[in-house]
Amino acid sequence: MTSIETHDQTTAAAAGEAADDGGQCCDNHGPHGYSARKAEHLKRLRRIEGQVRGLQRMVDEDVYCIDVLTQVSAGTKALQAFALSLLEEHLRHCVAAAAEEGGAELEAKVAEATAAISRLLRT
Amino acid sequence: MTSIETHDQTTAAAAGEAADDGGQCCDNHGPHGYSARKAEHLKRLRRIEGQVRGLQRMVDEDVYCIDVLTQVSAGTKALQAFALSLLEEHLRHCVAAAAEEGGAELEAKVAEATAAISRLLRT
Amino acid sequence: MTSIETHDQTTAAAAGEAADDGGQCCDNHGPHGYSARKAEHLKRLRRIEGQVRGLQRMVDEDVYCIDVLTQVSAGTKALQAFALSLLEEHLRHCVAAAAEEGGAELEAKVAEATAAISRLLRT
Amino acid sequence: MTSIETHDQTTAAAAGEAADDGGQCCDNHGPHGYSARKAEHLKRLRRIEGQVRGLQRMVDEDVYCIDVLTQVSAGTKALQAFALSLLEEHLRHCVAAAAEEGGAELEAKVAEATAAISRLLRT
Repeated sequence: MTSIETHDQTTAAAAGEAADDGGQCCDNHGPHGYSARKAEHLKRLRRIEGQVRGLQRMVDEDVYCIDVLTQVSAGTKALQAFALSLLEEHLRHCVAAAAEEGGAELEAKVAEATAAISRLLRT
Repeated sequence: MTSIETHDQTTAAAAGEAADDGGQCCDNHGPHGYSARKAEHLKRLRRIEGQVRGLQRMVDEDVYCIDVLTQVSAGTKALQAFALSLLEEHLRHCVAAAAEEGGAELEAKVAEATAAISRLLRT
Repeated sequence: MTSIETHDQTTAAAAGEAADDGGQCCDNHGPHGYSARKAEHLKRLRRIEGQVRGLQRMVDEDVYCIDVLTQVSAGTKALQAFALSLLEEHLRHCVAAAAEEGGAELEAKVAEATAAISRLLRT
Repeated sequence: MTSIETHDQTTAAAAGEAADDGGQCCDNHGPHGYSARKAEHLKRLRRIEGQVRGLQRMVDEDVYCIDVLTQVSAGTKALQAFALSLLEEHLRHCVAAAAEEGGAELEAKVAEATAAISRLLRT
């Protein structure tokens, strides 16, 4: 659940290989659909990190639990909004690219995206 | 959404007033039901903070978006689990204390807890 | 998942035993906290049933899938709202009654309510 | 929230016009991606309708509220699973078809699908 480094393409991507495809590549070996908005995503995630640190401060200062819960809801909502924006770009770039290939490639991408949406719904 | 300091009791609570009630007080002016498990809550929140920082690293390294989404789901789930453990203590201590008072006090606490659960469901 | 008759008290409850406690009894052997608002609950559930039948009509008439999804969201939201109103009464009556008994009885009711909230969050 | 007849194409679709496109058409004027699995969807929805009627019976027979809540969770989960299966077909057929057109058409379909997923997450 907390494993962060998941795919072997991570190193290649980090090393900037294939970086000249403008962040539209979805072959798991380079920048992805969301790369173009990387700065925006990172800003959003830093804000969420701030919310989680705020939660620690609240617990540490014995803030009333209902108020802590309200902040948890805000944090969860912010994470879901981040997920939706990632997902939108994934549909626009990766699923759309797979659609042009059609067949098994499209099937695989659609099944993968649906599974990801299902995980978001279950949390 | 990101306002953290919400109740005027924060300062009093942080100053440790009324700290000798064993963390069962629910009058918004001291340690709350969850205080007894503060260390556990803080540990859990630090782990969630680590997950959010892990997400930043993933985005920064252009990790495949579906893998980022999986981590978002894990983070959201961890926040929900934290919320549930806070809520459980709130029911055990604050709502139960209000039940002994009965009447308007109980009504208010039940309505407040239900609203908090509703916010968790909506996120 | 679809089993409807779950507890052995069902028959006793249906037979109206212990009905004179005004619907506040939470001992699993009679009318429960929500009984006082039974008519309201049934009306709400009939409306949800109508929504689900409406979904069948939409699918049968090949309505655009995004519009079907909007109706599914409305149905899910209505079910969650029904759950919240049941839960509120449960906290007000059953958990509050257990709080007066205290000890193991309170523990059991709080754990049970928390598990129910967790199931609602996961769906 | 309960409006069922939403698009003017409903009548045309119901009348069976354009029915010979094999259920892959996504132009809002005929059978949609999900049509091929219509029987399966209807069966699933009838089961959900049965669950909602089961909830009415439970409330009517004063079944213990926690057990009612468990059934509500099952019903919500079944609705979400139905939504996911519709969404998967929508991505496979309608979004993929829009991807071949590209440009504004793809943008519109992706934005629309993302909004639908967002509504599912909020409920």
